[in-house]
Amino acid sequence: MKLKASDIALQLQGRYEGDPEAQISGLAKIEEAKSGELTFLGNLKYAKFLEACQASVIIVTEDQPAEGFNVIRVKDPYTAFAQLLTLFYPQENTPDIGIHSSAVIAADVKLGQDVRIGPNVVVGEGSEIGDNAAIYPGVVIGERVRIGNESTLHAGVSVRHTVQVGNRVTIQDNSVIGSDGFGFAPQQEGDYQKIPQVGTVIIEDDVEIGAGCTIDRSTLGATRIEKGTKLDNLIQVAHNVTIGAHTVIAAQTGISGSATIGKNCMIGGQVGFAGHLHLGDGSGVGAQAGVSKSHPPKSKLFGSPAQELKRELRSHAYIRKLPELVKQINQLERQLQELQDRMSGNDHG
Amino acid sequence: MKLKASDIALQLQGRYEGDPEAQISGLAKIEEAKSGELTFLGNLKYAKFLEACQASVIIVTEDQPAEGFNVIRVKDPYTAFAQLLTLFYPQENTPDIGIHSSAVIAADVKLGQDVRIGPNVVVGEGSEIGDNAAIYPGVVIGERVRIGNESTLHAGVSVRHTVQVGNRVTIQDNSVIGSDGFGFAPQQEGDYQKIPQVGTVIIEDDVEIGAGCTIDRSTLGATRIEKGTKLDNLIQVAHNVTIGAHTVIAAQTGISGSATIGKNCMIGGQVGFAGHLHLGDGSGVGAQAGVSKSHPPKSKLFGSPAQELKRELRSHAYIRKLPELVKQINQLERQLQELQDRMSGNDHG
Amino acid sequence: MKLKASDIALQLQGRYEGDPEAQISGLAKIEEAKSGELTFLGNLKYAKFLEACQASVIIVTEDQPAEGFNVIRVKDPYTAFAQLLTLFYPQENTPDIGIHSSAVIAADVKLGQDVRIGPNVVVGEGSEIGDNAAIYPGVVIGERVRIGNESTLHAGVSVRHTVQVGNRVTIQDNSVIGSDGFGFAPQQEGDYQKIPQVGTVIIEDDVEIGAGCTIDRSTLGATRIEKGTKLDNLIQVAHNVTIGAHTVIAAQTGISGSATIGKNCMIGGQVGFAGHLHLGDGSGVGAQAGVSKSHPPKSKLFGSPAQELKRELRSHAYIRKLPELVKQINQLERQLQELQDRMSGNDHG
Repeated sequence: MKLKASDIALQLQGRYEGDPEAQISGLAKIEEAKSGELTFLGNLKYAKFLEACQASVIIVTEDQPAEGFNVIRVKDPYTAFAQLLTLFYPQENTPDIGIHSSAVIAADVKLGQDVRIGPNVVVGEGSEIGDNAAIYPGVVIGERVRIGNESTLHAGVSVRHTVQVGNRVTIQDNSVIGSDGFGFAPQQEGDYQKIPQVGTVIIEDDVEIGAGCTIDRSTLGATRIEKGTKLDNLIQVAHNVTIGAHTVIAAQTGISGSATIGKNCMIGGQVGFAGHLHLGDGSGVGAQAGVSKSHPPKSKLFGSPAQELKRELRSHAYIRKLPELVKQINQLERQLQELQDRMSGNDHG
Repeated sequence: MKLKASDIALQLQGRYEGDPEAQISGLAKIEEAKSGELTFLGNLKYAKFLEACQASVIIVTEDQPAEGFNVIRVKDPYTAFAQLLTLFYPQENTPDIGIHSSAVIAADVKLGQDVRIGPNVVVGEGSEIGDNAAIYPGVVIGERVRIGNESTLHAGVSVRHTVQVGNRVTIQDNSVIGSDGFGFAPQQEGDYQKIPQVGTVIIEDDVEIGAGCTIDRSTLGATRIEKGTKLDNLIQVAHNVTIGAHTVIAAQTGISGSATIGKNCMIGGQVGFAGHLHLGDGSGVGAQAGVSKSHPPKSKLFGSPAQELKRELRSHAYIRKLPELVKQINQLERQLQELQDRMSGNDHG
Repeated sequence: MKLKASDIALQLQGRYEGDPEAQISGLAKIEEAKSGELTFLGNLKYAKFLEACQASVIIVTEDQPAEGFNVIRVKDPYTAFAQLLTLFYPQENTPDIGIHSSAVIAADVKLGQDVRIGPNVVVGEGSEIGDNAAIYPGVVIGERVRIGNESTLHAGVSVRHTVQVGNRVTIQDNSVIGSDGFGFAPQQEGDYQKIPQVGTVIIEDDVEIGAGCTIDRSTLGATRIEKGTKLDNLIQVAHNVTIGAHTVIAAQTGISGSATIGKNCMIGGQVGFAGHLHLGDGSGVGAQAGVSKSHPPKSKLFGSPAQELKRELRSHAYIRKLPELVKQINQLERQLQELQDRMSGNDHG
């Protein structure tokens, strides 16, 4: 497929500056783009690649200097570039509209318009699948579940009974929503009795959940992931947790029971949150941090146990300073010894 | 559903004190319970919520002061409350008794009484499913596997050949039992030759395994999880590991090859165990710890590399003290300098 | 099964020294082997078990002293022992040759010779399955995927559209290959817009991927795992990552977007790699390390943030020294005070 750069600019509602005949046959990152390809400059960290850039067209911000290049000027180059990705590259097939003959759907399941239910899908009694929802092969949905409109569940996802999934939600392959929370009461003989987990999970609109995640149902009430929040892969969300709206969490992070994570937070990978704590809105947490207690809004946390960036850096700086401290102390000892010797000399002198 | 508080007390074999007509229509946590609901006070940390508590009935210990409340007195309020959860809330549907028509069961599989085998389940040759076992949709069981009586395998679980699963075992969705251990012999050309993993996995009675766990088969012999042990989600158990009875392990912990974990241990989340070590019975390990060597029974380990709590706290205390130490040293230097100057004055005086 | 030790030696192309009639009925580890069993001595750490060893035959290196034992001498005892494992123990059944009647295979899928496709497998349009490939039950393969010759996909694996899997690749149960990379552009209202992930994943020949792993497709181009590399369980590989050939990575490690890991590296468990960094060829990384920046070839990294082993050990040594430092400082203060007192005495004397 070839498109004229000026036509692309029109579609992005951007301003085109350059060769009116320039044509584009593909997209690439700025450090790899060749002639005939279009790229973008979003983060200024990448401006260093501009000089050697071979791309035929670059999407830039409205005031980015880019002499000698064909450019499309927009407010947000990254978002504009993202819109082109699905134009130039074929999208994944969704299951066909309708219900595959091998799917096992309980008789009373409510199906919205144009649902797409693939091979070997199982849906339990009293459940509901919204309009245009796409359920990939091998997904298992329990009873009394609601899957909202235009939501997508990829292959192998398990959604247990009574879970509520909002509209435009995406759940990547093999994630588990609504498994039992980890609750066991210790008994006198040293064994454990399971605490029934009779709550559920509520996933609000526009949430995305990565592959291989596990989101436990609550003991009572609901584990909740609020509107627009994005989880990466292999994330553990324990029972009774709430994750606020528009929060982004990187892979392999774990959130212990009854913790509440605020809105608009950015959490790195492999972070651990202890139970029953609250992380304030707008906070950021660095990769591998161990958050052991509550922190106020807009916290910037690093390390394990996690502390404010400034304190964490100071701790590290002091640790790095240790060899020098030891030298200083040894020198003080020598000087003091010398002084004592001289004093003794004085005393006896 | 409404139940009289005094009838609930009878059922829990507890002592009822309060309004003989009080009725209960639901359960709630002490900090959220409203009129008409029943709650419990187990951990005294939560006693602070007693004052403002609106619950109509509270389950308390035998000697807990609770004037002005309708109470049910029992030995263990948490366990008593747990018994009520399945009374007030509907339980998850199990697959119907029998074998779903879409299941693919080898001809020689031995099926116990009243087994429940859901849609798209696959069971290989020579395997055996115990009485009242429930196998949810999409579970794949290899050949010569034994699943014990009253055990439950949730959707998408894979149990590989020859694995032995005891009675009353629960395995949550998408866990894998009996995948190949990670064993590769380095070759002279820098590549690796796979070591066949010809052992198996033995899961004893009353074990619970969370969602998304991976439990590898051993090279020879068996990876073993002993009676009553509970694993949370996304836990990795490598080949040749043994986990002792009645041990509880939180999510995302990983145990390296040939490590043995004692009985009655409590292990936090995201902990890592190095290979070939032994953790003694009754030990506790804090979240995110990295256990790098063997430790005796009743160890309390924290940090990475993990050390006894007292040492770990002392390390942290000293690190926090560093800024002060630096000030002290600088002051010593100044004082010493001053002293030296005065001495020089004296010498030359 | 019983085999004569001398016949085993012939098969291993080893030199047999000992009782010509010795027979072997099983294999065991050196610390557990009984009479009638064969074991091996590879790593000299285990030589201490030689004295009490009851094995009837031991595989040893060409120059290992082993008086009084029947031995088979070979260059690499571990590799030789590994060859015997599949001789003495039955291997896992593969699905039967052909396509199980319950599998759902798109009409235009190209099937190689003697493919083995188990129950409930789904393969999308335009895909290709190589000669002798084995696809276990419940595997879902999207459209335009290539699975190479002699590759094995275990139960519940999901391979998304356009992913390329080489020859002799093994993927353990419930792993996900080609899920969407985690890319979202922040919008002015605080919400996020998904960046379409239009790239793919390329897995080269002889790679092994453990159970429960997630390997994301790239935004553009391909996430790539090079020839002969071995991944353990529950590993996260983000979009645009490259892992070099013959690298070995232990369980629960996570590699962030666009990082490149060199060839012939050995990475421990629960390691985290930040995005956009490069780890040089032949590097080693200790368990739970947090690699935050690029490191040259043959780095040996430990700790979080990861540093060279020598530096990491020094940091730890200094931290352990802190209590002593504090004592030293306090003593210096006392001595100085004493000196000042004496000086004051002198001055006023």
